[in-house]
Amino acid sequence: MTYGGVEAGGTKWVCGIGTGPDDLHALETFPTTTPAETLARAAAFFDQNGGVSAIGVGSFGPIDLRAGRITTTPKPGWAETDVVSVLQSALGVPVAFDTDVNAAALGEGRWGAATGLDTFCYFTVGTGIGGGVMAGGRLVHGLIHPEVGHMLIPHDRGRDPFAGSCPFHGDCFEGLAAGSAIERRWGKPGEQLGGRSEVWELEAEYLALGVVNVICIVSPQRVILGGGVMKQPSLLPLVRARVRELLAGYIVAPELADGLDEYIVGPALGDRAGVLGAIELARLAS
Amino acid sequence: MTYGGVEAGGTKWVCGIGTGPDDLHALETFPTTTPAETLARAAAFFDQNGGVSAIGVGSFGPIDLRAGRITTTPKPGWAETDVVSVLQSALGVPVAFDTDVNAAALGEGRWGAATGLDTFCYFTVGTGIGGGVMAGGRLVHGLIHPEVGHMLIPHDRGRDPFAGSCPFHGDCFEGLAAGSAIERRWGKPGEQLGGRSEVWELEAEYLALGVVNVICIVSPQRVILGGGVMKQPSLLPLVRARVRELLAGYIVAPELADGLDEYIVGPALGDRAGVLGAIELARLAS
Repeated sequence: MTYGGVEAGGTKWVCGIGTGPDDLHALETFPTTTPAETLARAAAFFDQNGGVSAIGVGSFGPIDLRAGRITTTPKPGWAETDVVSVLQSALGVPVAFDTDVNAAALGEGRWGAATGLDTFCYFTVGTGIGGGVMAGGRLVHGLIHPEVGHMLIPHDRGRDPFAGSCPFHGDCFEGLAAGSAIERRWGKPGEQLGGRSEVWELEAEYLALGVVNVICIVSPQRVILGGGVMKQPSLLPLVRARVRELLAGYIVAPELADGLDEYIVGPALGDRAGVLGAIELARLAS
Repeated sequence: MTYGGVEAGGTKWVCGIGTGPDDLHALETFPTTTPAETLARAAAFFDQNGGVSAIGVGSFGPIDLRAGRITTTPKPGWAETDVVSVLQSALGVPVAFDTDVNAAALGEGRWGAATGLDTFCYFTVGTGIGGGVMAGGRLVHGLIHPEVGHMLIPHDRGRDPFAGSCPFHGDCFEGLAAGSAIERRWGKPGEQLGGRSEVWELEAEYLALGVVNVICIVSPQRVILGGGVMKQPSLLPLVRARVRELLAGYIVAPELADGLDEYIVGPALGDRAGVLGAIELARLAS
């Protein structure tokens, strides 16, 4: 059996064919244009590369998993886009569907930084903040799917008067800590702020608050922090140190004390987590 | 098969025998004294009432599920108390073990306010705040177990200068919203503050923040709010209204809009959720 994976992002789509990181024998990336064009290009990729027995799609959201559709996205032209039925009709194979971050979590759980764990969280801190959650060996869906970027965290306006960048909630987690919040607060993108320690100390504060809340609510066995913002090398150690301070020894576990370097980690699959996770989605659905 | 359930609380233990709410044919409540005395009394109850084929225990925490033990509780004499091995030796039957709030969640899921749902949260807002989480039909354990009372939420010190009552975190969720926080902030217990609308508006603010964070992280199909503080009749409607405002329409689902009265609810099993959930724990372990 060979599986197809689609990481359906708001900026680009990544399509791949294979069975895992050591067997990814076709891979293509193309920009997200209109729904019809983008979906046709994905279908053509699988057609031209010999077909697959099932496809998994990890999509930007919010999505309706059961309907196989992207729902209320602000991305122009993409609201209420059927994804699953279009690919199914074009290719005649089963299509599994989940969020991009749940797919990435699944990939990291199968082959990456969370291998062997049944309960963990994967955050992506980029332009926005998303999160995939695995609990008891299953991706968490529930009512819709997790939207960790929109949890509400303490915001000390004395230290940081920035009102937040989320159009819905202002200073929610994403509104304070996403890449777009960094850029609006400091006037330039994070990549150009490498030497400014106050930028990364504040960023670590917010990320640590988000991680602490996930620890308190889901009790993950590990937390993976990925996405463009995490490429700042000083950030991950700062987050770990601040998580430890904020937890204040309440939850007693070696993972949350001297083991924090192995508890809060970067992704192991890098940019391929999404497409590999989508391949795993396809395998699980077959 | 007949099952035994123990709701092992910090103040009292409730032991019951039966198979469900309509078949609970022995029930006894006694105060939590020393570990040896309390465990012996529970064992004697099951012995004297004809024995059971398995026992479930929902315990105050924090607990080590695998070791079957209460761990770092500040309750005098109870730190590092073996529960499972003591009951197993005394009664010679399998003993399942989980947190009191996970057991209550399980009971509400089997027979109460979350029947038929696979992903939901049960909060108890009493002297402290605890929470049980069910995701994909399984109780969430992960590294330890959820400790929802200790998530960190926004605290506007202009509106509420109270520093919080949590000895570990000050103004965490529990430190701001638990019954003990209400009593310290206002100088008397919540039961004596029924007519003070500012008390319950502030309480609803904090509870809504906690509920919003659980919605963003776990995407529950329902949220159950139980415990003594929730007996204030004005509180639940205030929480619902504030959750709706805080979500600001971002997550589109009828449950989070006009369906909120059925989405954020009180427990259906009342004071029996814990012991019934413990009975269900026993059944699942058999």
